[in-house]
Order: sequence, then structure tokens, then C-alpha cells
Amino acid sequence: MTVGIVGLGLIGGAVGQALASSGFVKRVVGFDRSPEAGQEALRLGCVRDIVERLEDMRDANLLLVAVPPSEVPGVLRELSDIVKPGAVVTDCASVKSAIVAGVPEALETRFVGGHPIAGYAGRGAKYASPDLFDEAIWVLTPTTGTNPDALLTVEELVRDLGAIPVTMTPEEHDRHAAVLSHLPHLLASALILQSEFLTFPNMASGSWRDLTRVAGASPSLYADIFVQNSPVLLSAIETMRDQLEAFALAIGNGDKQALERMQEAAYKLKHDREREWI
Amino acid sequence: MTVGIVGLGLIGGAVGQALASSGFVKRVVGFDRSPEAGQEALRLGCVRDIVERLEDMRDANLLLVAVPPSEVPGVLRELSDIVKPGAVVTDCASVKSAIVAGVPEALETRFVGGHPIAGYAGRGAKYASPDLFDEAIWVLTPTTGTNPDALLTVEELVRDLGAIPVTMTPEEHDRHAAVLSHLPHLLASALILQSEFLTFPNMASGSWRDLTRVAGASPSLYADIFVQNSPVLLSAIETMRDQLEAFALAIGNGDKQALERMQEAAYKLKHDREREWI
Repeated sequence: MTVGIVGLGLIGGAVGQALASSGFVKRVVGFDRSPEAGQEALRLGCVRDIVERLEDMRDANLLLVAVPPSEVPGVLRELSDIVKPGAVVTDCASVKSAIVAGVPEALETRFVGGHPIAGYAGRGAKYASPDLFDEAIWVLTPTTGTNPDALLTVEELVRDLGAIPVTMTPEEHDRHAAVLSHLPHLLASALILQSEFLTFPNMASGSWRDLTRVAGASPSLYADIFVQNSPVLLSAIETMRDQLEAFALAIGNGDKQALERMQEAAYKLKHDREREWI
Repeated sequence: MTVGIVGLGLIGGAVGQALASSGFVKRVVGFDRSPEAGQEALRLGCVRDIVERLEDMRDANLLLVAVPPSEVPGVLRELSDIVKPGAVVTDCASVKSAIVAGVPEALETRFVGGHPIAGYAGRGAKYASPDLFDEAIWVLTPTTGTNPDALLTVEELVRDLGAIPVTMTPEEHDRHAAVLSHLPHLLASALILQSEFLTFPNMASGSWRDLTRVAGASPSLYADIFVQNSPVLLSAIETMRDQLEAFALAIGNGDKQALERMQEAAYKLKHDREREWI
């Protein structure tokens, strides 16, 4: 089994590192459109071999695409002319419907959409670590057209990386990601922007630091993700605006009982959710 | 100097503990409307003496009121008939304008509104710790009518507790608290409520856990705070709804450049703010 990693940033780099001790994968080849990023990943030991052109990946049995969401369709188009018969292709983007809908016909049966629920504030292979995926959820989004063997191959890779493969539809993935990740990132940005004209921001406490931490995530990556998950995220934003209006109504009416009911529902859900975490 | 602590929960308990090693304060007396809470604080060593009735606090030179915001006005009314001439009174509520506006005439010159920016997820004296206020900001909100000596006395107490006294107007405090604390708590609740019907909440990652942590704070305390800071908080909510609309517009238009500009402004502010933290 030869694995080709396309994109040697944080995720691609960590996959390479984790596969170094794999029994399942015999060879790992890396490629990055930026020669500097490729050389850095090589120097950091993320991969032992890199190729200079994407077409030099034609021998791989399994191709893992780890580039920003908006670049995945272009890479898949290029790969559809390159990969050998039977080779399996997967990606790591945090948005799935748009990507799965645009998979080239030649790859349809052997593409398995994927999304590792793992990350780090820093970008690039220099922040990669072989245990990044340890016990992390790794969502896979096969469709009715996906070859079952292709899914099994990707599941094996995911387990080999130390992660837990979980299968759902691309739509189900995007609905979850909108609420559980994209909206939180957007709220963090909107909240910190509101502090711009405060004269004494040092008055902030733990709640502020929690709510704004991910405003430090990559601006271009999240601008990309927001657009890619547009329809579902827009609906999550609309729901949030409605909820804020409901809170505002109760506050305006001085309706402490209504506010306490809302706060208690949130409190209960928070503690139920904690028991559910794996 | 005898200090009377009214309300022996987390804050009152921690103040008592921190004053045990004070050179400035000779005696600390505690009172809690709940005899059980009073006995628990005594048993935990938060205070060495408790009194059974508020009027037994008449000997104190400095009274620190550490009860929920909505109960502060009632306690101040009772204290105005009790405290001896020259005694100073302060409180710890996280909302200031409404409280300062309602201070009884007899206390007007010697009441100094206060708010320690410190806390803990758990409630009650059993979570108190003498280092809760170490290097914490402790906002004080004197008015033009406040006796300068009263302010100096409270500042001395605050420094004695290990905290950093910072003076601002009640309105300035509430505007900061609305953005830096009350809105974050409200967003955390609204966000977690949106996850109610997700079938696989385990897909959550670090951003979700950060953004929803404070949904675990006391529902009744925050319902109280939201109502007490109503006008300023309503304006912060309105601003947040407008910001969400601006994001939604850019997402709906697929305007990645606009989104990147917004995300970059947030990113920059986040990193500037971090350099500003004390």
C-alpha cells in the first residue's frame, strides 16, 4: 500500500508522521504545490519522499487530499486524469456537500469524503504531531455510489492513524459542522469585533477568553469554509439571530422567569452533552 | 478595623479566607440569610465569627455585600438603618448602574460600588479559595458624591485581598461588562440550545467546547444579571445581531474577500488584545 498525501500542511504533515509507524502502509509520498512547504515537511520528517509534480503520484493506491476546502475540487479534477485504476481518493476538508457533489465522474465510485475532527491553532507542517488524531472522530461521507471496498480502505487508514471513523451523509456532516464549528468560529469573530472601542478591555475574564479564542484561527481558511458551507451556515446564523431576539425580548420585558427557563435549558443541555462525549 | 461580610457564598467566602492573613483587618464577621450557608462557611474556616441577624453587624467599620445583584438594594436599605457613623459599605455585584442609582440617601457618601473580576464555575463557600483574587482586576465605581476616604478604605481592602483596584463610572463598568461577560454568557446559552436536535453531538471539537463552557454557569444568577444590566445588554445584543447579518450577507453573496476582511479584523484585534492583557 502506497499512500500519496496531497498538501503538506498541519493535517497532511500529521498524517505523514502518524503513518511512519504504520503496519498497513508501506510507502508514503508527499506533494505540495508550494516547493518550500514540501521541503519543510521533508526536513521535519513528515514524509520520507516528496514528488515535484502531482502526476508523479500515479503509483499511489490511496490518495489523501489535505488542502483548503476551495482547492479540493481542482485537485480532484487533476487526480481523475492521473490515478491508477482501483486507487482510492479521500479528502480532509471541513465542508462536505459541495465537495462530494463536484467529484469528477472518473472518481465517483472510489472517492470517500472525509473530515478529521482535529486541529491546532498554528498552521503548517511545523505544528504537526503524529498523535494529532489519537481517538479523534474522523467523519467519512460515502454516498450510494461509493464502492464499499473504497470505504473499507479509508476506514482502515483512519484507524491506523489512531482515529475513530464515523460514517454519515455529506449533508448530515455539514449541518453538524455548521452548528458545532463554523458558527462558533463566526461568533468568536463577531464578538471580538464588538470590543473594538472599549477603553478597558483588561476587564475581560474567563468567559471572554473562552468565547474569543478561535477568533485567532486562519482568516482565509474560515472565509473559505463559511462560503463553502453557505446554505447550512446561513440557516444556523438565522437561528442564532432568532434566539438572540428571544433573549432580548425576555430581557426587555424584565421577564426573569423566562430567562431562567432559557438558561436552565442551556445548563441542562451543557451537562447532558458532557456525559455524551466520547 | 472590623469587616462584616454579608453573603457567604463563593465571593464572600473567599474574601473571608483572604482576610484571615490580613494586617489591615483585625476582625472579620460573617452573615448569611441562610443559616446553613453561614454554618458551612464557619466550618470551612472562611470566617471565624458569624452573626445571626444583619443588625448584629453594627460594629463593623467596613461592610462588604456579596449577594446576587437583585438582592443588593434590599440589603443596602437594611444596612442604612444599622451601620455606625463613618462605616463604609461596598458590594461585589457584576452590574453597577442600577445598584448605585438605588443606594439609600443615608449611605450615599460612604457606599463604593465594586466588582471583582474573578469567579469559578462552582457556587458556594465550598469552592472559595484565599487566592481567588490574586492579581484580579477589582472595579470600583465611586460617584461625585462619594467620600474620598471611603474610596481609599475600599481600595486598601481590595489590595489587601491581592487584587488590583481600577476606578471607572458605573455606566462605563456596565458597558464593559455587557460586552466582555454578559453577552458571552448569553451567546454560550443560545449556541448550546441550537445543538438540541443534532444526532451526533460528539462531532464537536475545541471551538465548541470553548464557546459553550459558560453555559454551565448558574441559570438564576445570570437571569438576574441580564435583567439588571438590561439597557446596555440589549444594545450589545442588537449590535451582535447586526454583525451576524453582515456576515450572513457576505456569505450569501459568496463574497470571500469581504469575509476575509472581517475575519482579519477579528484576528488582528484578538492578537492586539492578547498583548494588552495584564
